Amino acid sequence: MSTTYERTIRFADVDGAGFLFFANYLVLCHEAYEASLLGAGIELRKFFGENRLLIPIMKVQAQYLGPLQSGDRARIELTATAVGDNAFGLSYRIVHLGATEKLVGIARTDHTAIDIQTLERKALPANFAAWLKSAGPAATAP
Amino acid sequence: MSTTYERTIRFADVDGAGFLFFANYLVLCHEAYEASLLGAGIELRKFFGENRLLIPIMKVQAQYLGPLQSGDRARIELTATAVGDNAFGLSYRIVHLGATEKLVGIARTDHTAIDIQTLERKALPANFAAWLKSAGPAATAP
Amino acid sequence: MSTTYERTIRFADVDGAGFLFFANYLVLCHEAYEASLLGAGIELRKFFGENRLLIPIMKVQAQYLGPLQSGDRARIELTATAVGDNAFGLSYRIVHLGATEKLVGIARTDHTAIDIQTLERKALPANFAAWLKSAGPAATAP
Amino acid sequence: MSTTYERTIRFADVDGAGFLFFANYLVLCHEAYEASLLGAGIELRKFFGENRLLIPIMKVQAQYLGPLQSGDRARIELTATAVGDNAFGLSYRIVHLGATEKLVGIARTDHTAIDIQTLERKALPANFAAWLKSAGPAATAP
Repeated sequence: MSTTYERTIRFADVDGAGFLFFANYLVLCHEAYEASLLGAGIELRKFFGENRLLIPIMKVQAQYLGPLQSGDRARIELTATAVGDNAFGLSYRIVHLGATEKLVGIARTDHTAIDIQTLERKALPANFAAWLKSAGPAATAP
Repeated sequence: MSTTYERTIRFADVDGAGFLFFANYLVLCHEAYEASLLGAGIELRKFFGENRLLIPIMKVQAQYLGPLQSGDRARIELTATAVGDNAFGLSYRIVHLGATEKLVGIARTDHTAIDIQTLERKALPANFAAWLKSAGPAATAP
Repeated sequence: MSTTYERTIRFADVDGAGFLFFANYLVLCHEAYEASLLGAGIELRKFFGENRLLIPIMKVQAQYLGPLQSGDRARIELTATAVGDNAFGLSYRIVHLGATEKLVGIARTDHTAIDIQTLERKALPANFAAWLKSAGPAATAP
Repeated sequence: MSTTYERTIRFADVDGAGFLFFANYLVLCHEAYEASLLGAGIELRKFFGENRLLIPIMKVQAQYLGPLQSGDRARIELTATAVGDNAFGLSYRIVHLGATEKLVGIARTDHTAIDIQTLERKALPANFAAWLKSAGPAATAP
């Protein structure tokens, strides 16, 4: 079941051509990730401190399928996929909401949990693993 | 009646000391302004184009009374005051929401409407003036 | 011959973990692109207006190989590759400068020129094509 | 003697009207502050850690006198004034460089040094005090 996040593109989010700056599509994606985590009671900064780990992004991919302008409303749909016990991928669909919905971007970020001291890979705590599962793709019926 | 806007401080909003970067308090204030306008059906970019005007900010003042960290929830309270027919001031209170509420900043921005071509002062259209009134200080009982 | 751009990571560029926010690696890359273009006398905003075209980014890929913190100095190396007469790719190497140099990220952005009205693909003007060539990979000796 | 900092306004720095977003004038000012400190061997993040203090901004004031667009070159002139041994003000002039120079903004930030644990006011270390002096107003000849 993917989780969703909505927000309005703001006056400061655009670039010199008047469109959402390409890097800000990824800012929106990270906001969706943070919002979904917060919904599960996980705030990244505290979580990192309490669990003595970091979850850096290792890789990003995005495709831009349409523009967004300030005042536009966008929905970000996030789907998580665990990769073993210490890594995961997040897939995002960015949808322009309006009279009709239009897919304006897709993105994926790959994350790996590491120990804050040793920087070695480290298993994700149970609450984070539970969030990953809850934000995973819907189970297909048998 | 002031209008309010809430949002969570995000992972990217903080500075090297871990606190909301000072300029981002003002970004929050402008978000509150945009959100309140949108609630009245006014989107700045389209509004500027349709009315051939700009409303630059002429002056900013802010006082910082407390920190905000990522994951913190803030409410911005906006109160508008018209200054003649072509200028206005916006006052903001930034409140950290939590077990108790704490005022962490106050700010004010001064705006003047100008013609997009001549850059001369220009009266604000009726719908904007109506928004200013609706976001104004509550009338005091007689 | 790749073109290079250097700048210091700033206090506002980091995230809640204290490291350069992942989307800001891409902001750095775009800065390197803009700086290199400016060196060739091309400023994107004016260029778009004068040539009635846009050059949206269609795709982004990035790999993160190491962290950057505020105060760190980074060099971005950009190499351009034309794809026909209306598209190009930019490859970036992000290097942390210090006692020793360390590659902390690689990225690639894919761009396509389109007509500002029809949104159809449109050939890049000669000065831009010349810049692409100048920022291309060094010719290998025979 | 004021210290100066220059940089080009970038494609991502502008707002939906195509001009440097008002909060980004203050970002430029803070960049000038950081750059000047770095020139004196002081990097804020390390400095805060090593000296167990923070130097939050308590107050900001800015006046906007003209627009800046992407591609424009700006110079920020910073002048520091110590206020006792634990506080200081920074005044900024933001100048648009071009065929002629034009003052497009002035700003002032007020800073107070506090202990990172107690949050009580704390005297600035000698190297910071020396920087303040070096960035102070030029002595007038008798």
